[in-house]
Amino acid sequence: MLERDLIQALVEKATPQPGVTVGLGDDLAVLERPGGPALLVGVDPVIAGVHFDPPRDPPELVGRKALCRNLSDVAAMAARPVACLAALTIGRRETGAAEHAVAMMQGLQDAAGLFRCPLVGGDTASADGPTTLSVTVVAEAVDHPPITRAGAQTGDVLCVTGPLGGSLLPGPQGQPPHHLAFTPRVDAALALAQAFGGDLHAMMDLSDGLAMDAPHLAQASGVDLEVDLDALPVRTVAQQAHPAPEARWRSALGDGEDYELLLALAPDASPRAALPPDVTLTAIGRVVAPSSPPGRVAWLTPDGRPFDTTGLGWEHAAP
Amino acid sequence: MLERDLIQALVEKATPQPGVTVGLGDDLAVLERPGGPALLVGVDPVIAGVHFDPPRDPPELVGRKALCRNLSDVAAMAARPVACLAALTIGRRETGAAEHAVAMMQGLQDAAGLFRCPLVGGDTASADGPTTLSVTVVAEAVDHPPITRAGAQTGDVLCVTGPLGGSLLPGPQGQPPHHLAFTPRVDAALALAQAFGGDLHAMMDLSDGLAMDAPHLAQASGVDLEVDLDALPVRTVAQQAHPAPEARWRSALGDGEDYELLLALAPDASPRAALPPDVTLTAIGRVVAPSSPPGRVAWLTPDGRPFDTTGLGWEHAAP
Repeated sequence: MLERDLIQALVEKATPQPGVTVGLGDDLAVLERPGGPALLVGVDPVIAGVHFDPPRDPPELVGRKALCRNLSDVAAMAARPVACLAALTIGRRETGAAEHAVAMMQGLQDAAGLFRCPLVGGDTASADGPTTLSVTVVAEAVDHPPITRAGAQTGDVLCVTGPLGGSLLPGPQGQPPHHLAFTPRVDAALALAQAFGGDLHAMMDLSDGLAMDAPHLAQASGVDLEVDLDALPVRTVAQQAHPAPEARWRSALGDGEDYELLLALAPDASPRAALPPDVTLTAIGRVVAPSSPPGRVAWLTPDGRPFDTTGLGWEHAAP
Repeated sequence: MLERDLIQALVEKATPQPGVTVGLGDDLAVLERPGGPALLVGVDPVIAGVHFDPPRDPPELVGRKALCRNLSDVAAMAARPVACLAALTIGRRETGAAEHAVAMMQGLQDAAGLFRCPLVGGDTASADGPTTLSVTVVAEAVDHPPITRAGAQTGDVLCVTGPLGGSLLPGPQGQPPHHLAFTPRVDAALALAQAFGGDLHAMMDLSDGLAMDAPHLAQASGVDLEVDLDALPVRTVAQQAHPAPEARWRSALGDGEDYELLLALAPDASPRAALPPDVTLTAIGRVVAPSSPPGRVAWLTPDGRPFDTTGLGWEHAAP
């Protein structure tokens, strides 16, 4: 667990800078500054052999994914992307690494245009290791403060913005797998924040699998959660691969890289404005009073039995 | 030359984002936004085996350097640091890499406190390659627009803020070498911008060696330069290592990693406010009318002969 804790522990010990308030605990840091909207910044790498496999994964889609993982973090906080930077290390030992790097960067550039997050700078080096593309994203708050994981309240409805599971499986009709081709929910998040206003209590994006991610929202909010497994929307390819309900639930909870949003909405929330047609919300459970300590999630089968999720989700490997 | 050109070429082709004006051509991207000061963002990695050598280089100093290289970019534009992020990849094959990574991050954190650029986020992973620490820096313009490389005018005086050369040599009295222990010229740059106002025409930091860097300022400004080799301030350890003038000049021009500032000042410039005592300016030459194409630098010996600088400076390795 060194990986997750190392930087977070240092961040929490950082000396405050006058005029800058730093919000902690989410994938993006929030910099509140006088005289301007809050800024959000984050960095996430994709590493050959860890987050993608050359030459199996098309490099254009790897570049796209490198940006879109960061944009999913922007979506999680209902912010608007401003710009991105790329730190590229080209692996000297990989055959065709230079050509792949060019294609990766082209894929990133295409996605940057598509999702209005222009590439404004970066650095390229080569080294005796795997090709790595670290993307930094800069975003800004629009019209409302950034949404965090920390606001869920007892009684809230838990929702997701799209189907879960099967992110590594080939897509339908020869489409690439979801983890390489997903649409980060930036526009959906802005529409949800606009439509629900203060009734949108908490939000996060699902990258490690619901079984791993949902407890983080519960812990940050100091509540417990109940999730109805039968209510989980499951990606079609995962439904086809897993006919049995239990296998299907495990896929939806543990495959990871869904890049959908998990929301806690006030129980009486109704949208003040129409949601765009491509934004679908599925209620999957509810926020309940906290146990001691808070942060527990009960995964409920249709007959109300608890379901064991031990080992499900993408555990960040220790070095 | 893939490395330098790849990202820059894409940056120049990026789709503009409404409300964001991107300044190009320097180490930091400048984001001009309505309703707030200009933001500056950049990213620079340090890679084991490329920018540092474990276990020879103390990891605390490597972490310090990872931040300070970025702060030197902030200084180059006379901006103020706001915050930094760290993307750390721990090399699985390196003995003691996890402990080194902890020490590196502690060194970065200490420097972040010292130079008022708090660590606000990041990501850690491990991979089968060299330990890499990519630092993203966010800065903001204060009181004046960011200074660029592009404003030098014929007749300007060229100055540097400190001695050059010998950055890899052990420091005096067992001190670490300059490239691991330098002070980024952030405060000096802010004081210079304040003191000289509009008479400070152009500025950049010296990271690849004056022989490699000065032509970039000349090209960006569309001018030529003349540098008097005898006027170059040379670091004491480099003077001691190189008694002969020509070897000394080569060290000052080509060792790189000086992290001092190169400035073009109006010929009649005088400071409107006292400079802090630790800011020293040494005139090393002048800006002259451009040849066609512009961007040439004449390196002049004391008897006025040109000096060949071919091969001097840190050429970014092609993959």
